[in-house]
Amino acid sequence: MRVRALTQDLARNLSDADSSIQPMADASPAKWHLAHTTWFFETFLLREFVRDYQPFDRRYHFLFNSYYEAEGPRLERASRGILSRPSLSEIRHYRSYVEQEMLAVLDWLPSSAMDLLELGCQHEEQHQELLQTDVLFLFSRNPLYPEAWSDEFVPRVAASVTPLAWVEGRPGLTEIGHKGTGFAFDCEMPRHRTWLAPHALADRLITNEEWLQFIDDRGYTTPTLWLSDGWAWVRDNGIEAPQYWRRSSEGSWASHFGLDGLSELQRAAPVSHISFFEADAFARWANARLPTESEWESAAVAVALEGSDANLLDCAGAVAPRPATRGRGLRQMFGDVWEWTSSSYLPYPGFRTAAGAIGEYNGKFMSGQYVLRGGSCATPREHIRASYRNFFYPHQRWQFTGLRLAKDI
Amino acid sequence: MRVRALTQDLARNLSDADSSIQPMADASPAKWHLAHTTWFFETFLLREFVRDYQPFDRRYHFLFNSYYEAEGPRLERASRGILSRPSLSEIRHYRSYVEQEMLAVLDWLPSSAMDLLELGCQHEEQHQELLQTDVLFLFSRNPLYPEAWSDEFVPRVAASVTPLAWVEGRPGLTEIGHKGTGFAFDCEMPRHRTWLAPHALADRLITNEEWLQFIDDRGYTTPTLWLSDGWAWVRDNGIEAPQYWRRSSEGSWASHFGLDGLSELQRAAPVSHISFFEADAFARWANARLPTESEWESAAVAVALEGSDANLLDCAGAVAPRPATRGRGLRQMFGDVWEWTSSSYLPYPGFRTAAGAIGEYNGKFMSGQYVLRGGSCATPREHIRASYRNFFYPHQRWQFTGLRLAKDI
Amino acid sequence: MRVRALTQDLARNLSDADSSIQPMADASPAKWHLAHTTWFFETFLLREFVRDYQPFDRRYHFLFNSYYEAEGPRLERASRGILSRPSLSEIRHYRSYVEQEMLAVLDWLPSSAMDLLELGCQHEEQHQELLQTDVLFLFSRNPLYPEAWSDEFVPRVAASVTPLAWVEGRPGLTEIGHKGTGFAFDCEMPRHRTWLAPHALADRLITNEEWLQFIDDRGYTTPTLWLSDGWAWVRDNGIEAPQYWRRSSEGSWASHFGLDGLSELQRAAPVSHISFFEADAFARWANARLPTESEWESAAVAVALEGSDANLLDCAGAVAPRPATRGRGLRQMFGDVWEWTSSSYLPYPGFRTAAGAIGEYNGKFMSGQYVLRGGSCATPREHIRASYRNFFYPHQRWQFTGLRLAKDI
Amino acid sequence: MRVRALTQDLARNLSDADSSIQPMADASPAKWHLAHTTWFFETFLLREFVRDYQPFDRRYHFLFNSYYEAEGPRLERASRGILSRPSLSEIRHYRSYVEQEMLAVLDWLPSSAMDLLELGCQHEEQHQELLQTDVLFLFSRNPLYPEAWSDEFVPRVAASVTPLAWVEGRPGLTEIGHKGTGFAFDCEMPRHRTWLAPHALADRLITNEEWLQFIDDRGYTTPTLWLSDGWAWVRDNGIEAPQYWRRSSEGSWASHFGLDGLSELQRAAPVSHISFFEADAFARWANARLPTESEWESAAVAVALEGSDANLLDCAGAVAPRPATRGRGLRQMFGDVWEWTSSSYLPYPGFRTAAGAIGEYNGKFMSGQYVLRGGSCATPREHIRASYRNFFYPHQRWQFTGLRLAKDI
Repeated sequence: MRVRALTQDLARNLSDADSSIQPMADASPAKWHLAHTTWFFETFLLREFVRDYQPFDRRYHFLFNSYYEAEGPRLERASRGILSRPSLSEIRHYRSYVEQEMLAVLDWLPSSAMDLLELGCQHEEQHQELLQTDVLFLFSRNPLYPEAWSDEFVPRVAASVTPLAWVEGRPGLTEIGHKGTGFAFDCEMPRHRTWLAPHALADRLITNEEWLQFIDDRGYTTPTLWLSDGWAWVRDNGIEAPQYWRRSSEGSWASHFGLDGLSELQRAAPVSHISFFEADAFARWANARLPTESEWESAAVAVALEGSDANLLDCAGAVAPRPATRGRGLRQMFGDVWEWTSSSYLPYPGFRTAAGAIGEYNGKFMSGQYVLRGGSCATPREHIRASYRNFFYPHQRWQFTGLRLAKDI
Repeated sequence: MRVRALTQDLARNLSDADSSIQPMADASPAKWHLAHTTWFFETFLLREFVRDYQPFDRRYHFLFNSYYEAEGPRLERASRGILSRPSLSEIRHYRSYVEQEMLAVLDWLPSSAMDLLELGCQHEEQHQELLQTDVLFLFSRNPLYPEAWSDEFVPRVAASVTPLAWVEGRPGLTEIGHKGTGFAFDCEMPRHRTWLAPHALADRLITNEEWLQFIDDRGYTTPTLWLSDGWAWVRDNGIEAPQYWRRSSEGSWASHFGLDGLSELQRAAPVSHISFFEADAFARWANARLPTESEWESAAVAVALEGSDANLLDCAGAVAPRPATRGRGLRQMFGDVWEWTSSSYLPYPGFRTAAGAIGEYNGKFMSGQYVLRGGSCATPREHIRASYRNFFYPHQRWQFTGLRLAKDI
Repeated sequence: MRVRALTQDLARNLSDADSSIQPMADASPAKWHLAHTTWFFETFLLREFVRDYQPFDRRYHFLFNSYYEAEGPRLERASRGILSRPSLSEIRHYRSYVEQEMLAVLDWLPSSAMDLLELGCQHEEQHQELLQTDVLFLFSRNPLYPEAWSDEFVPRVAASVTPLAWVEGRPGLTEIGHKGTGFAFDCEMPRHRTWLAPHALADRLITNEEWLQFIDDRGYTTPTLWLSDGWAWVRDNGIEAPQYWRRSSEGSWASHFGLDGLSELQRAAPVSHISFFEADAFARWANARLPTESEWESAAVAVALEGSDANLLDCAGAVAPRPATRGRGLRQMFGDVWEWTSSSYLPYPGFRTAAGAIGEYNGKFMSGQYVLRGGSCATPREHIRASYRNFFYPHQRWQFTGLRLAKDI
Repeated sequence: MRVRALTQDLARNLSDADSSIQPMADASPAKWHLAHTTWFFETFLLREFVRDYQPFDRRYHFLFNSYYEAEGPRLERASRGILSRPSLSEIRHYRSYVEQEMLAVLDWLPSSAMDLLELGCQHEEQHQELLQTDVLFLFSRNPLYPEAWSDEFVPRVAASVTPLAWVEGRPGLTEIGHKGTGFAFDCEMPRHRTWLAPHALADRLITNEEWLQFIDDRGYTTPTLWLSDGWAWVRDNGIEAPQYWRRSSEGSWASHFGLDGLSELQRAAPVSHISFFEADAFARWANARLPTESEWESAAVAVALEGSDANLLDCAGAVAPRPATRGRGLRQMFGDVWEWTSSSYLPYPGFRTAAGAIGEYNGKFMSGQYVLRGGSCATPREHIRASYRNFFYPHQRWQFTGLRLAKDI
């Protein structure tokens, strides 16, 4: 119920219209997120395990299926924004109805159902992040630049950060992948051995200040810094800065659009909303490279998440990446921004998809995408861990995505 | 104020989301119609004639300009659906604000302004029709098939109509174009002479029943019935029936989507929501042709609009085309559905565009479009007249569009 | 045989590759023109009228059908450039084979066949023009700028032309359309009455010099000069000059690509290779308009074509528009460039398509296109007449197309 | 000179038109391959190392640059098919000219140039394969189905193959990457350690016979067998069989198009011209998976290439994949078809791009593509080795591409 409540809370400032519009095919309406996460419980738990379950509305099975082929036909993804009805209010009733039904049966659900219940909560946490980034994208296209969280106070400290330093990783044979008994997605398993060459990771994320240097040094107009596909993407889309940077009337990159609206660009904050192509080009410009996911995970397991002040999502509000704290050693490994790795999102050796519709959860997306690690300021705190593998296409950048450098040593 | 009130009324069942979504580039959100018609008065009257006029919100000048190049940059047409803000409620305030400002200055506006005031009302009436057809299109794409007017009673008489008969037109030299002192758009002028060959018009519109015969006779799969561009359109879009016809589960064309939702196909009602290409193919199949706009107007001037029971818009509700009344002579010339003519939308001899931004009203659209005549069930009653020229591209069919046959004699 | 020989001659400098490549969907390979014109005789005469006719190659029936639905499936238009085989040499054999077969049966063909024979020759003359313009387009895209007629001498007189003068047309009731017994296409008939308002035509074509003034006066960047569709076309395609104008290294419009390759822009020559949109915008800029096709034809019937020095195609070579001769009265009505009219290509009152496949010749193209009149330097001399209606889409400009102004008086 | 001669020989049956047409953006005209491989020597050797070198034609530097940003602007890739000129004959002169110039300076070139000379030959061998597959694609689109090698005898043995057996790989720490002093591309280096889990490889390639079973078992219409991107590709492109399979008039998959034209489908031959998506779906259907590139290379180093009867390119002709020989152990590791692996084409740990334009050779293509191993019947015999990494996008299939299964044990 805590997870379910947070989802509602994240949408609490949204109007019916805010929650219904689909600003691009990749981004779903907030209302759809609210409904689809509910559909997940209704479809895989209530319809599956509860005899004579009466669906809230049978037509929702078609409307709010995301991509589960095994669950039959569905509204195509690019049409999610056509649903002015059901209204936001009706969707809230839907959520409430399913929650009550779930509570009523919770005690006698079989243990196989309990795994799906856990998965349903994890699934909802994923959509909590998407809900925030999709609203951000929607508002960014509105010439009025609405604020998702107008009444929040977001500190704008003109901080600086320590110079970037390198932290050596542990080379040789290592194991990566989920270990232990806590929840993990199938793609984080099985735990397996891999070999690491000598390497080092940067002790903090790349900042907006450093990104401005990349721009000033003609980073976006020097083709030899870019992958071939990346360069084509830059030219075809007229890319010249991170997704939400905006120019001042004099032409300099002066402001940034976030969940709190348009504000001054914070130079010490980690750069965010960049594509893999941009991250990769920056790394080449910096005579470095992106870390592999193995290098990243190998380092991250030694970083405590509990008790840390990692900038992850604790409650609804105008979340934003924050400058690195002072100090030594690896900082910002968790939270702030997802870190692009140089690893394609591929199955681990021995990977098996789950049986049934749930088997479509991860495996079928394992082509053409890159792994990101560490969570962002929009990731629910309990949702992240060292073995977590997020994935996006190399051109996508509407998530809170940034980079940490790595190098061979 | 009566015109302005009807616009509001037409939107009274719409939610914030209903009024904000843009279902295709051709169709604007209802909220945008409410705002743009207000923008028209604000831009061409208040800003132009009232010293120190304080705009409701300066940013609206950009948001709600439709296509007036002379009024500067504007939100591009295909992006009108991004505006979850301003909300429907704010737009209602905007309407009210501009109305109050207008009322305050009405008495001392110069006469040139009075012409613009008239134009503003006529302009708003045009958008009243678009608002209805755009909402219809939006709801037609929603798998829930919402009803715009759920509480209305729409009679579903299983009527039949009289067999189609021909009414001879008056051949020879005639005059067409607006005559007299009432309002008319610039494209209806100047009145000018034209020569008509001997011809006859059908005494009523083509019905759904007749359209079913066309389908049964393989109308949509016989290329020689179609214009070359029309045939390409049919194949590329998989066209096989009018826009809002829906199949039964057995596959027959059984129902029709309208402002009152999905209902049984009325066979005696005029076929509606067909493209010029479809109208033209039907006429060829029927060994007839479409009327020219001169033939149509020449006949229509003799048909009384006042006092007739023409099916035009009188008040907000689930308007729909109705079967022809029994009787003789030309029926359904006004109202029900716009009638495609075979005439391209071109300037009349001696046509001059108005000076200033208003000059962009009609003239610049005179390429690639066809003239439609007679108004529809969604056209405000006082907005139609024999000389009225509506125009759409030959593939468009989300308006209430149908056809009347003509032939040489 | 004279017509057939000219077609061969027009292709005599082309290599196998020159004759096989399709540089855009609108332009067909020269080899395809050579074959398709032969296919026309084979399909509508030999296969139709000659018992036991043995086709040259049965597969050609599919390959070289242009758009005749009644003749069955065919290679789609955009794929004509895939045919590296049959070779140019094989197509020449095909031409020869069909010619011999035709000669063998000519004497005893029925009179209905003789009409098709005439049509076949007229059809071939149309493709003679297209062959030239399609090769011109192909070569214009080649960075080497090949010359189609490298060994020809084309005079480059730095001529000037007389100031533009106006010639009044005859207003009132007139008749247009083909008259008499000579050949005409179905679309030129029936001859019919029409009413002309008082008007005048320019006595000569608009020149490159005058077009440069239009450019210098920001013609291509002033939206209010353009039709709405035209302005969209200008922006989407980055249009800033006629199709084959090229800039000097200093940026001025200094040269022009033609069948004789790249050469200095001739300022006194008529502007050529402009779209309807450009012609219309120029006319608006010049406070004039384009003529209607009725106005044009009404004037042209009084201009003698025979014996005139009209710049039409007499033999293969580097044809090009020429400056107007000095003198008074209407000049350049025939030849040089096709003249855009303001008339949509629509059926004349009483128009009937022919029976059979030949019925697809003209009628099905009567939507979305504009009429052009008068022929060009690439039109065979005997192919043109006052009633001739050519037609293209308003954005097309790879033909020799220009304009003559008109105005109301 | 031997390498150069083979390239000419591969094109010896091509006409001027055959060698000039570009049938899709991915496939270049044969003439372009002939010229570009020559451009490579001219650009990186003659222009770089020979004082006062006179280029054959300065304009070729623009025309025949493939993708080297450092070499300045170039003809865009999709426009390579516009070049009817220079003719095939001129390109042969170009080849000869550059060869003579090379021979003249060979003896005194510095050693750094000798590496480029080697690279130039290897580069030309790559284009030898592309030349064949691009011609195959061109001819496959021609309804006449031309034969590239009409006079060749290709044995059509109705062979069968032994049942598929599994060969265990060596698990644990291993090294992959180029070893020794022979030529290798930068992407094959550095040699590095990697960890292999227990696994086995199929002892032969998957056959057409087995692919027919996949089709019969609804392989192309079962979404759960496919990666999400693969399923979208299947639906969007109507994929239902390998690229060059053709149906009989009864609808069964009966024939196959190859360099020798259309012929009966050889059931025992390896399936060819499939995409990664298809290979991956087949493997899932077969309860297996694709090998990783490490697994493949680890096995391949133990297979002798020299002296084997691997089906690789020895001389120009109608090359085609052949059925597996009888016997035991790994067969068909080299030649026949490129084998899709499950590995993304990524840099090896410690990868460095070369300095200068040559640095654009491989590294910039390392995103979005998959590794293929082992060479094909169209790969020059001396061009292949165990460490060789070929790469294509997952939807591409105009190369000779097939698959070998792998599994965990």
